[in-house]
Amino acid sequence: MKRSLKLTLAYDGTAYAGWQVQPDRVTLQGVLEAAWRKITGEAVRVTASGRTDAGVHAWGQVVSLSTASDLPPAVLRKALNAELPRDVVVREICEAPPDFHAIRDALGKKYRYVIHDSPIRDVFARRYCWHYPQRLDEQAMQRAAAALVGQHDFCSFQSTGAPRETTVRTVKELRVWRGEDGKLSIEIEADGFLYNMVRAIVGTLVEVGRGAEPESYPQRVLEAKHRAAGGPTAPAEGLFLVQVDYGEPCESPTSSHD
Amino acid sequence: MKRSLKLTLAYDGTAYAGWQVQPDRVTLQGVLEAAWRKITGEAVRVTASGRTDAGVHAWGQVVSLSTASDLPPAVLRKALNAELPRDVVVREICEAPPDFHAIRDALGKKYRYVIHDSPIRDVFARRYCWHYPQRLDEQAMQRAAAALVGQHDFCSFQSTGAPRETTVRTVKELRVWRGEDGKLSIEIEADGFLYNMVRAIVGTLVEVGRGAEPESYPQRVLEAKHRAAGGPTAPAEGLFLVQVDYGEPCESPTSSHD
Repeated sequence: MKRSLKLTLAYDGTAYAGWQVQPDRVTLQGVLEAAWRKITGEAVRVTASGRTDAGVHAWGQVVSLSTASDLPPAVLRKALNAELPRDVVVREICEAPPDFHAIRDALGKKYRYVIHDSPIRDVFARRYCWHYPQRLDEQAMQRAAAALVGQHDFCSFQSTGAPRETTVRTVKELRVWRGEDGKLSIEIEADGFLYNMVRAIVGTLVEVGRGAEPESYPQRVLEAKHRAAGGPTAPAEGLFLVQVDYGEPCESPTSSHD
Repeated sequence: MKRSLKLTLAYDGTAYAGWQVQPDRVTLQGVLEAAWRKITGEAVRVTASGRTDAGVHAWGQVVSLSTASDLPPAVLRKALNAELPRDVVVREICEAPPDFHAIRDALGKKYRYVIHDSPIRDVFARRYCWHYPQRLDEQAMQRAAAALVGQHDFCSFQSTGAPRETTVRTVKELRVWRGEDGKLSIEIEADGFLYNMVRAIVGTLVEVGRGAEPESYPQRVLEAKHRAAGGPTAPAEGLFLVQVDYGEPCESPTSSHD
């Protein structure tokens, strides 16, 4: 008798060739499946809400799996965290409905992108932000971003990759702000994201923030319906998958105590 | 005609065998002197306010050097930051009095030690804090720490190392607090520190914080005048040299703009 579990993971993506298993590469899916096998003896295949690229981080990646193990979630979490490398952690495990599927059931996702816009690099944050050597105007970026909120065809903001049925997505929220640590954050919540969509939006907003393009630029890029109309793709190290929304909270979570 | 400069450095000490040059090891002094030579052609010997150990970080390490170069501080800073590895940065350079000496002229120093006291590790902070797997009582630690403030013989809080003329030091301030990110910080300001003194104090306070020793424990350790009386030496990765105090601000600083 198999049961379904929902795992919430955080990871520092710096050392990984992305989420998905690839031959001869160290991937996040690979280390998670290896840790699972070591603990339960079971060769599971896990499903993540989305495949983060090489160097991209997660605070709340969600993974579904089906298992014959009857170990309680809290025991599994402790055992997995003892096996996993130090740059990956299982924050939470909970029992999920039998047919729970981390991709199919996702209602939306939230990503955050962090930029350190200063001539002097921050040595402690260097793996977790885009170091941009000049000051950006976050208020101009926030005003320019307004054009992207709502339902639009975002084909100008996707890199060529897996073909999609539709390139229409709904951005529920797009916030740009400067934190107390002086860094810029750009947080985007949408019902789904195209390949490299957040990094293309960030690269486009930065063109506004540095004064190279007017605040009307994102609107113009949307209308062009061509990737080349937008700004460059921002580097991976500033990107975090923050949260995946599934509507209902799951049963009996093991909370992360932090 | 030589001039003296005062450099303020930040570094992530994770990848280094400490500050001081050693044969066949990558050290912070070594990478700074190599960058200087590459820019000016000059083989300088730099002096730091103190030699941080392997794995210890700095936000405000201060370095003095004497140079024949007449490049302006802002030009030197930019050139050094382009040469230095990404985990080291020169935050500021300023002209110093001709006889300025980073060790001899220091009036005091401030260190911070960061502890993440939670069963679940923080993958993004793992190089910059001591991950302690259980919750600590920061208020008990703050109360216990009061016994260490003032002028005392701290010989119970030094590892065996270079012999010192005296083991009496004056702790001006010792604060324990929990930040908004949930992590504990212990900040100690003193006129000088013995070898591993901060890490021995932290290891001792943690014994109180986890409930293994009473709040009177640090006082008892002080009086024992023996290192074995105290708690274990806390690991290097949580320790930051925050600031070195020289009294007078130096002339014409290049500010760090962040």
